[in-house]
This record gives sequence, C-alpha cells and structure tokens, in this order.
Amino acid sequence: MSTSMATSPHTHLLQNHNIFNHPTKKHHNLLSLSFKPISIKCATTQPQQDRVFNFAAGPATLPGNVLLKAQSELYNWNGSGMSVMEMSHRGKEFLSIIQKAESDLRALLQIPAQYSLLFLQGGATTQFAALPLNLCTPQDTVDYIVTGSWGDKAAKEAQKYCNPKVIWSGKSEKYTQIPSFYDFQQNPDARYLHICANETIHGVEFKDSNYPNPRNATGILVADMSSNFCSKPVDVSKFGVIYAGAQKNVGPSGVTIVIIRKDLIGNAQSFTPVMLDYKIHDENNSLYNTPPCYGIYMCGLVFEDLLKQGGLKEVEKNNKKKAQILFDAIDGSRGFYRCPVEKSVRSLMNVPFTLEKQELEGEFVKEAAKEKMVQLKGHRSVGGMRASIYNAMPMAGVEKLVAFMKDFQAKHA
Amino acid sequence: MSTSMATSPHTHLLQNHNIFNHPTKKHHNLLSLSFKPISIKCATTQPQQDRVFNFAAGPATLPGNVLLKAQSELYNWNGSGMSVMEMSHRGKEFLSIIQKAESDLRALLQIPAQYSLLFLQGGATTQFAALPLNLCTPQDTVDYIVTGSWGDKAAKEAQKYCNPKVIWSGKSEKYTQIPSFYDFQQNPDARYLHICANETIHGVEFKDSNYPNPRNATGILVADMSSNFCSKPVDVSKFGVIYAGAQKNVGPSGVTIVIIRKDLIGNAQSFTPVMLDYKIHDENNSLYNTPPCYGIYMCGLVFEDLLKQGGLKEVEKNNKKKAQILFDAIDGSRGFYRCPVEKSVRSLMNVPFTLEKQELEGEFVKEAAKEKMVQLKGHRSVGGMRASIYNAMPMAGVEKLVAFMKDFQAKHA
Repeated sequence: MSTSMATSPHTHLLQNHNIFNHPTKKHHNLLSLSFKPISIKCATTQPQQDRVFNFAAGPATLPGNVLLKAQSELYNWNGSGMSVMEMSHRGKEFLSIIQKAESDLRALLQIPAQYSLLFLQGGATTQFAALPLNLCTPQDTVDYIVTGSWGDKAAKEAQKYCNPKVIWSGKSEKYTQIPSFYDFQQNPDARYLHICANETIHGVEFKDSNYPNPRNATGILVADMSSNFCSKPVDVSKFGVIYAGAQKNVGPSGVTIVIIRKDLIGNAQSFTPVMLDYKIHDENNSLYNTPPCYGIYMCGLVFEDLLKQGGLKEVEKNNKKKAQILFDAIDGSRGFYRCPVEKSVRSLMNVPFTLEKQELEGEFVKEAAKEKMVQLKGHRSVGGMRASIYNAMPMAGVEKLVAFMKDFQAKHA
Repeated sequence: MSTSMATSPHTHLLQNHNIFNHPTKKHHNLLSLSFKPISIKCATTQPQQDRVFNFAAGPATLPGNVLLKAQSELYNWNGSGMSVMEMSHRGKEFLSIIQKAESDLRALLQIPAQYSLLFLQGGATTQFAALPLNLCTPQDTVDYIVTGSWGDKAAKEAQKYCNPKVIWSGKSEKYTQIPSFYDFQQNPDARYLHICANETIHGVEFKDSNYPNPRNATGILVADMSSNFCSKPVDVSKFGVIYAGAQKNVGPSGVTIVIIRKDLIGNAQSFTPVMLDYKIHDENNSLYNTPPCYGIYMCGLVFEDLLKQGGLKEVEKNNKKKAQILFDAIDGSRGFYRCPVEKSVRSLMNVPFTLEKQELEGEFVKEAAKEKMVQLKGHRSVGGMRASIYNAMPMAGVEKLVAFMKDFQAKHA
C-alpha cells in the first residue's frame, strides 16, 4: 500500500513518471515542473535507518506507516485543500474523521451498543476527578484496589468528591503484585470498584482471568486502561467505565477516551465543571466544545492500522511474543538483570528491570542510546530500567534490545 | 527560507544535487539511491493552487509555511529519529520545544516576569470553571460584562463556584455593542471583572482604548482572548489572567494558554480537580501530567513565524488592512450586505454579515465554496455569514472574497 504526499510546488523535485518516461528531457522537465504541484509516493513499510527504537512510556512510539500517512496528508487532507488541523470541528470533513475513528474503535473492542464512546481532553488524571463527580454523591463509598502509583493517584483525587476506600494496596511490596480475589474485602455499599488495569510505572497488569468481580450494590467495575488500551481484546461488558489516555498505544497525547455504560451517564454532582460532565459530551457526540481534532485523527489512523493487522487478537499475540523474549532474557540472565514483578501479573507493555550491579545502570542507558535505543531509564520514582513495548514497538526493537542486553552482560559479568 | 524533509527511503525520488551534478548518470543514480534516505527542500511560500481559503472560526487556517515545516519534520524531528508525537514529555527534545514556545510567546506579548505562562488542555470552557475555582471562595462576588455568547457561558459556569453578577449584557441588542466605561456599575467587593475580549460568534471586540478599568477590591481584570490572542499587541500588565484556546490564531485545537499573575496562584478551592489547579501546573512548568505535546509544538512554530513577521505590531497592521477591505465592501454595498455590529467595536478577526435578501444566503455559501472559499456560513445560533480572518488568512483570501461579494451582488442586485 502506498499513499500520495502533496508537497510544495516550489520544491525542486520531479513528477516521477516524467523522469522515467522521457530520459532525454530530464533537465528540461526539472525546470519546467518546478512550479507545479507534484505527487510523491511514500512507501509505508517502516524504514529504520533514520529512526530510533523508542522505549518511552508515553508519549510513545507510533506505527511508522501511520506517521508516514499522516505526513503525506498533513498539508492537504484528502483533497480538501486544508490540513486536518485547520478543519472546523463541525464541518463534514472532520465529522467523517471522528465518526470513522469511533466506528473503528467500536469494531476493534466490540463495544456493545449500550456503551457511549467519548473523545475528551485532559488525560486520565482529569478522569480521576470526573469519575466520582459523575458516578457518586459526596456521601458515597467507593472501593479502590491500588496496584501502583496511578491507582494511588486516582484514589487520592476521589477524596475530594466521595468517600474512597483503598481496600487493597501493593505499596508495602513496592507494587509488584496484584491481589487474588479472596485477598480483599469489598464494601457492599460501594458505588464502584476501581482498578488500574496496567500500572505504567510498576509494570503490573491485570490479566483477563483476574479482573475482580465487583461485589457491591451496583456491580460497577471501573478501569484506567491508559497503558494497555487496545493491546489485547477486552470484554467491555464487564466494565461500567473504561478510560484511557491515548498516548501509549493509540495516538499522541491530548486525547482521552472514555467508554461508559449509558445508564451511568446523567447524574453529575452539581458543581461538576461542564467539561467534566459525561452527559454534556455524550449528548454532543464529543463536540460540545472544540475537541482535540488532530489527536483524534491520529487515533483514527492507528485504529485503522490495528484493524488491518487483524484486530486485537493478532495484536495481543504479537505483544505476548515480544514480552516473552524480553522476560526470557531477564530471567535467563542468572540475576544480572532482574524484574521485581510477580510473574503471573507482569505487564506485556511496561517491563521494569534492575541491574544487579546498580552502578552500571547509567552506562547501560548511555550505551543503548548509542545504538539508537532510547528512553530506557526507569521512572524517577522507582529507578532502574524500563522498556515500554507498546503495540507499535516492532519485534526488531525488542530483539535488538535483548541482543544488546546479552552483549552488555558479557562485557560486565 | 527552506526546510528539509525526511521521507521514506523507498520513495522513487532523487537527491536533487545528484541530478544536477551528474546529468549522464541520472538513471543509475535513481536506482542506486532508491533505498537511501533523501532530503527534500520545501519552499515555505504558501502555494494556493491546491489549498482553499478557509474562513472557519476555529479550528482555523494556519500559516502555509508552518504547515509545510511541520510536514517536513513530522516523521523525524530534527534528526532525533522520532516524531514530536512520540517524544517523552520529559525528554530533552520535547523540553527544548516547550521552552522555546514559552520564550517566544513571552517575547511576542512582552509578558512580564511576574506572570506565569501555562500550556493546558480543555479549551476556554474548562477555564470558565478553573477561574472561579482558583480565584474565589464560594461566597465571593465576581463581575461579568457579557458582550456575546462566550461571556454568557463563562458567567453561567461561574455560578457553580462563586457568586457572579452580570453587570452589563448586550443580549437585548443581540450582542452588537460594548458598553462604555460609564454604562456599568462594578461591585466594589467583586473578586475580579471578567470580559471576553473578542466574541467569536458575534464579532464584537474590546479595543485597547476600551478595556474596562476594574474598580473592585482587587483590581483584577480577567479576559478570555481565545479569538484575538496574538492578533495585536496587548499590555499584559493590565490583566490578572488572560486565557485563550489556541485554535484560532496560534495553533491546532487541544491547547489552552493561560497567562496569570503569579500572586493569584495558590488559592484553589478544596474540591478543585487537580488538573484545574493553576498551582499544580505552575509548579510543574505545565508538565504535571502529559501535556498536549504536538499541539504545543505547533503553537511554537506559529510563535516563531509571528516573530519572523516582525512581531505583533506588524501582525496587527496586516489584520487592520484585511478587516478594512472587508468592512468597506460590506458598508459600500448600499445595504446588499450588512454587518450588525456597532462600528467602533467591530472585530478584526470575525466579521459577521447578513444579506439583505436572506433567501440568497445559501447560494452565497455554495458559490463561494465553488471558488474555494469555505466555511463562510454564520454560526448556527445567529445565522447569516461569518468570515473569520485570523492572522493566517492571507490578504489574497480577503481580496478574493471581496471580489466575489461584488460579483455576487452585481448578479443579484
């Protein structure tokens, strides 16, 4: 598949058919064509020559073919005569973009019809407030299982708007575990049970088999899926609300996706900012005010790409393989590398690890960067290393990292 | 000025120096080079051949040279091996981008050192709540002058968090006026006086000479400048807070800029969502959570461009000329076109006008679109036409519109 790229008519380039068809007229054509628009064919295979492998936790690497497509149509989208960044959010062009993004995401996650899909701003952190503001009265109890920093932040923000109870916390084990269902006691009157499905910093992830079953009055499970959103199939019907910042697996920063069961919409507390009220956004199809249009467009390109890859089952297969290779390298290093996370709940997306010889960590990061593998330093709150290997990290990136790790170990063992 | 554009190594293009230097080897070079990265020179003059003139009220037209530069480096920013969309917001590359954006905007508006500059999310509508949440107690009175729909919305949202008084409203005259200073009575105990400096829908704009002088306990004037931000010089020191959505004059949607006197920061009400607390963002240089990185980068490119144009005095000169041409055409049409706004407060950015023969309005919009002038339909709440002529609308666009208006009148008079 190739895409066409409109570029400046003043550029000193050829329409490529001319140079092949009229070899004797090349120079002449060059000059005569230099003020006409040209079309450039961009291959969509991902060229790595001038790209790094970017292991950042988010914003994070995006699929190369998606970036090339975005580049090709940045100046003039689909013959509209304008960039997506310039489009009225109420014009037919942008409406076609947001509607396709919604329908592709609905197809990917098989989102049931009784769920609304919202494209918002402000990151998961804004949702930490929006959730209790929309789902609770100030007197309501809610349950939080805290398996890392993000769940902890979510519970703290909720204190402003309701009565959150941390019913389990992994803090004393430095967030390396997820409780089994019998290890925590839910409040029967809790308005919802909240989890962070994948803790980006600590690398612990709820697996399909261990999503907790909400044993509360409403049966509502709420999940922050920011860092494993669209990395695998999810049974949406198990959740009341799923929310995710886009900047890990599905787009650039600045877009937050909320998937919410429709019957949970419409009860916002009276002092909820209008921009945090799900009802407003639901009634207006995410167009109450000007949405982050370009970010939504980019997410749409990623959704399209994920569908082309065969959907989330295929994506998950690939992610499992990548993670397996990396964890095997860590676990097979005879302790030179260590991942602190309990094996059954290790994240397929964020792989934190430490070096036995801590003093080598700086050199590890530096040497890796020389080989074009960047952003491997762990989060400042936990130290060590972290390799984020989201959907868009190619297998080649993980293989290169593993080869580097083995070399590095051989040098320093 | 030209920019270099990295593109796919698989594209069938030439490194342009080769074709000029080795005319006999062209075909050979073509093939041998087809798998190497190439550099394309993009002219930064704005080619109009395949572009429309986009009169949308926001998101709105952006400078062509800025879009071409963004396109050229979308896939690989400045040799970093990644797109700006993929960069960690805490990495040195993005830090250099946000810091340059800040210093360029400070230079453009000559922002005094005692003001903080924040890059936020959520649009002006989020600020409608953030302002009273940060500046008031629930008991505080605040004054709103309402000169259009946006000021009206701001006052209504404030009702949730304080005691706003609409001390003047232009609603009964359909928002076509701005009061003179003696036409309204301020509350002496008001915590701030709020205006919308330019009403995007109604096209009324406070001029430098008629910013009201706050006669309240604190002397704080607050302005929503979304739709005339960076369209002219502004004496920032007159204001306690200036806020603006980026998507009119300075970038794509998804970025909101807040300029706030530092002593007003730090008193947020207890239930303020953390993402609406100015203190959090100020302490973290707009990096408390993941900011809308690509939008901020785009704003930075626009700021750089405005500085290159000679700064806001030059920009204002140009905007005055464009508006003059358009208003002259309207006022000289012997009533065929009418602008309802009182002359002294007409916006230089948003020019609403009606046709005497209302039944021709649909045809006007349709015919204009055929000539590649789009988004001229007025806001659904007021009808008629609206031509938004922000900084990035070239003089040629206004001239073309005026010529079209005269032709249209001649056909239908």
